[in-house]
Amino acid sequence: MKRNYLNNLPLEEAKRLFFDHLKAVGFGAQTESVASADACGRVLQNAVYAKICSPHYNASAMDGVAVKASDTFGASEHSPLTLTRERYSVVDTGDPIPDGCDAVIMVEDLIEAGDGKLTILSAVHPWQNVRQVGEDICMGDMIAPSGTVLTPALCGALLAGGVTRVDVLKKPLVGIIPTGDEIVPPTDDPQKGEIIEFNSTVFSAMLRECGADAKTYPITPDKKDLIRSALETALAECDIVLISAGSSAGRDDYTSDVIASLGTVLVHGLAIKPGKPAVLGEACGKPVIGLPGYPVSAIVVMDEIVADVLSAASGHSNRTRRTRTAVLGQKVVSSLKYTEYIRVTLGMIGGRLLASALPRGAGVITSFTKADGILTVPQNCEGYEAGEEVEVRLLDGVDPSNTLIVTGSHDPLIDEVSDLLQKSGAPFRVRSTHVGSMGAIYAVRAGLAHMGGVHLLDGETGLYNDSYIEKYFPNGGAVLEKGVRRVQGLMVAKGNPLHVKDFRDVVRVRYVNRQRGAGTRILCDHLLAKHGMRAQEIDGYTNEEYTHTAVAALIAAGNADAGLGIYSAAKMYDLDFIPICDEEYDFLISAEYADDPMVRAFLAALRSDDCKERLTRMGGYGLEE
Amino acid sequence: MKRNYLNNLPLEEAKRLFFDHLKAVGFGAQTESVASADACGRVLQNAVYAKICSPHYNASAMDGVAVKASDTFGASEHSPLTLTRERYSVVDTGDPIPDGCDAVIMVEDLIEAGDGKLTILSAVHPWQNVRQVGEDICMGDMIAPSGTVLTPALCGALLAGGVTRVDVLKKPLVGIIPTGDEIVPPTDDPQKGEIIEFNSTVFSAMLRECGADAKTYPITPDKKDLIRSALETALAECDIVLISAGSSAGRDDYTSDVIASLGTVLVHGLAIKPGKPAVLGEACGKPVIGLPGYPVSAIVVMDEIVADVLSAASGHSNRTRRTRTAVLGQKVVSSLKYTEYIRVTLGMIGGRLLASALPRGAGVITSFTKADGILTVPQNCEGYEAGEEVEVRLLDGVDPSNTLIVTGSHDPLIDEVSDLLQKSGAPFRVRSTHVGSMGAIYAVRAGLAHMGGVHLLDGETGLYNDSYIEKYFPNGGAVLEKGVRRVQGLMVAKGNPLHVKDFRDVVRVRYVNRQRGAGTRILCDHLLAKHGMRAQEIDGYTNEEYTHTAVAALIAAGNADAGLGIYSAAKMYDLDFIPICDEEYDFLISAEYADDPMVRAFLAALRSDDCKERLTRMGGYGLEE
Repeated sequence: MKRNYLNNLPLEEAKRLFFDHLKAVGFGAQTESVASADACGRVLQNAVYAKICSPHYNASAMDGVAVKASDTFGASEHSPLTLTRERYSVVDTGDPIPDGCDAVIMVEDLIEAGDGKLTILSAVHPWQNVRQVGEDICMGDMIAPSGTVLTPALCGALLAGGVTRVDVLKKPLVGIIPTGDEIVPPTDDPQKGEIIEFNSTVFSAMLRECGADAKTYPITPDKKDLIRSALETALAECDIVLISAGSSAGRDDYTSDVIASLGTVLVHGLAIKPGKPAVLGEACGKPVIGLPGYPVSAIVVMDEIVADVLSAASGHSNRTRRTRTAVLGQKVVSSLKYTEYIRVTLGMIGGRLLASALPRGAGVITSFTKADGILTVPQNCEGYEAGEEVEVRLLDGVDPSNTLIVTGSHDPLIDEVSDLLQKSGAPFRVRSTHVGSMGAIYAVRAGLAHMGGVHLLDGETGLYNDSYIEKYFPNGGAVLEKGVRRVQGLMVAKGNPLHVKDFRDVVRVRYVNRQRGAGTRILCDHLLAKHGMRAQEIDGYTNEEYTHTAVAALIAAGNADAGLGIYSAAKMYDLDFIPICDEEYDFLISAEYADDPMVRAFLAALRSDDCKERLTRMGGYGLEE
Repeated sequence: MKRNYLNNLPLEEAKRLFFDHLKAVGFGAQTESVASADACGRVLQNAVYAKICSPHYNASAMDGVAVKASDTFGASEHSPLTLTRERYSVVDTGDPIPDGCDAVIMVEDLIEAGDGKLTILSAVHPWQNVRQVGEDICMGDMIAPSGTVLTPALCGALLAGGVTRVDVLKKPLVGIIPTGDEIVPPTDDPQKGEIIEFNSTVFSAMLRECGADAKTYPITPDKKDLIRSALETALAECDIVLISAGSSAGRDDYTSDVIASLGTVLVHGLAIKPGKPAVLGEACGKPVIGLPGYPVSAIVVMDEIVADVLSAASGHSNRTRRTRTAVLGQKVVSSLKYTEYIRVTLGMIGGRLLASALPRGAGVITSFTKADGILTVPQNCEGYEAGEEVEVRLLDGVDPSNTLIVTGSHDPLIDEVSDLLQKSGAPFRVRSTHVGSMGAIYAVRAGLAHMGGVHLLDGETGLYNDSYIEKYFPNGGAVLEKGVRRVQGLMVAKGNPLHVKDFRDVVRVRYVNRQRGAGTRILCDHLLAKHGMRAQEIDGYTNEEYTHTAVAALIAAGNADAGLGIYSAAKMYDLDFIPICDEEYDFLISAEYADDPMVRAFLAALRSDDCKERLTRMGGYGLEE
């Protein structure tokens, strides 16, 4: 089997190699002329000077009459002065001042005296109430220097100064070539083995946010000659080309070979994670970048390299990177083999900005959709301890203040409450993380969350939650707010083909479990003990998932035969459901935040009629209280 | 003469009236369905749930072979295990896992053993190297709640979850009707009395920045029936209508009447400055806003009211207003009659953020193009003292750090140096203010500027600058860096029709002066004293302008006959020039910043060959040093 090997070049070294080469082949900003009226947001190539004055004639600043100021000298309340018809001209705001006049008397200051005569009670001085030539802009003055990003007001000033067209830096056009035998255009009904091609959508949107134009070419199969021909077309039409997927060194990875056949491959393999299998090359004097197929890897390469290529192409930096100091919520371990980019959520709690790491898999696009920031762990660093202060780069548009941090057991109702709050215009957002019921206790105790969902069965009493609070908060520090009752049970395939009747039957099927610390895992262990069963007997006991829907999805897919979960998840996946118990899903709240307006609003939304209606529709919830 | 009167309604009261009415007539957000691939930046109307899992089948996470994990149990370096051809299937990354298999062995871990057999040195556990169904997204999970602004990654997640279309809030379409008998489309050669219509360009660009679409209608003359008919058209086509100009209560101001004839005028006249003559109305259930004709007034109304109308129309706030605490560089006086919006420049100096007020005229668009922020002086406040701390709203995209503050005498060379610095990619910007040479001394002494241009003639010695430094910085604190020599003289109309021969002739013409504190004003006063002339003799002595080009523009326009200024300004306006003296235009630099990299870069650019070439082209500069 064919096997190439990737380099593991540190990012800065790779970029130096790449950008030095691009500079050497003359890659850089180009210029185009656009109408000033359409130039907002564009970058001036050269300094712009006013061609005319603004105003370009002496204009009345008021509605009134134009006069020669010296004709009015001496007028006062004690000695009013009357102007005959030939000593004034009626002018509106913006009208030119007639020859021989040099001032305007406001209409408010005029007293009609019959026969077209006007009486005034005060004099005007020369050029009073007149916008003299050049009051705003003088011909020849520099309106803006080169490199200026044009604002709406600047576009107005250009036109005021008679500058109807300007030379601006050309927006780079970036071609995107999606490759892969298995990828298909977006659909809601893909067949097995078909991968939905959404990376090009992500890239286009990112490129447009950076001020570039994007053109996506048709999906090209993993055939070297087809990819080569697509690259030739894109090189002829675009300023920069991105080849999506096929950038690694596997059997069907041709990106590097194709770039080499038309130009030069400078780097193949970066010491970053995610993003390692990237290709940095050049052909026809244009940058050609091979992006990894995994979306998260590709986004990191877009962020760390393509953004800089756009800056070079557009002649100015598109990046205003905001960083904030945050406290890490958990220990983060990273390898010395690479620089790692870890997606984090952010929220303010106890006056500190708290960063919590999201899942680190390269295929998990949701780790970017939920992310508020990026924590970079340098190559020479093995990671950080929980509680350590770290610098986090904020993602665009993120405002981490006003975040309600809900950390604990998973239930879809948290998302529903969050949506209800958004719909009602709540001035905060909800960031929820699924770490299980014990995770809620840990997070609230450590000051890492405002609240969290818990459903913790006390095997001795058969009661929920209270005894855990007493045990873990012996001196107070947390309160429990009643949530919902919900039905837990075994989810099995539709029609229950393996005839699972109760929990004891899981010994003879493939089980899928929840993670340690989850309330549902505690229930599982309680049931094992109750029935005198041992974990080792269960095929799949170590198969851990983090949510009810993840367990349901695996059973629906046939990866497992049974798993514990809530009714609403079974219903969603059209699974059979064997009820086992009714449990109390409550909210553990940090005592410090028990009266916090965000917490109160969350609970109010939970208890609203809208929420009840949604839970009824989802099924399996008891809402007596 | 017709005369209506404007109200003077406080802004908050006016907005309450206006928005309560809009709510009552049902004005609000509308929804449209768009392709998820085109939805970046749009706002979700409803929560979106995944329609399919991602991945939606069990996919190989690696290039390698798919196996049944249990077939590999027991393999180790000490007891290698060989798989026959029927026990594995070759899979690439992304390929479906064949039925009966539940794990993948990476190609790196395979040893070919002939006859299609493969040897392995370690076992794999079930689901190892497999992306199980739902690893990223589970069907039924909420991808994002309502109100979410879609990011590139979220668009990707929507497609990954099989959501190909989404309901988003409709972008409001805003119609703009420019009105006025005197206005003409942008041109570089307007006739006297023609005003270039650039406000609609400013509005369109502002609206687009807020996420709205804009449609500009043809210029409509000041005729009530024509404006009414234009408004009817715009109301039929748009969600919001802006009528530009005619919003006051003058002779030709019809906006208010026209809105009243088709709907309701809620407010006419706001207690804000600039922006007073605004009209807030409604017709056909849509907001109709009459914007003042003066650009600065209109921009303030756009910022303070139209932005909120867009928020109401789009269902979410478009405004992320950033504020900063700054120290005021000079006293600011405001009236108790209105809330005032003062444009300021910002820069860091001595660890403080310094705000300097820009010209306050409503017609001065350049006060917005130069502005970094807005200082709001509430109606109940008479202003602020110099040195007082104030809250300033940052304009979009402004980063006030890394600003070189150059405050002092005007010379176009400062703009040229600033442009050269921009072209060379300097990591800072230059903010220059023209307050005259004495202003430079004041600003550097008070810690309000890094440096400033000075050309101060000592009448007793005939020498420039040094004696002033000794006088105003007796204990040090400033250094003088040599700048340029330049020719000062009298500018007169082309052909010198009034036969001005030397400075003594200004007694018999209309003079235009520079402001107090300007080096050129000091030269003027020195010449008066030298020739035994008195200021009162000079017609126009109190006529003050702030720049050489402003003086030249007024002479070229015939508003004055003569004024002192530098040769380059006379040349720019094709004026005759009577040389009077050669002066030294130097830079006064705060001693604290004498070695500052920004200051050094400025001086290096000033002394560069590029700069010499530019100054030679402008004319009138001596560059021996």
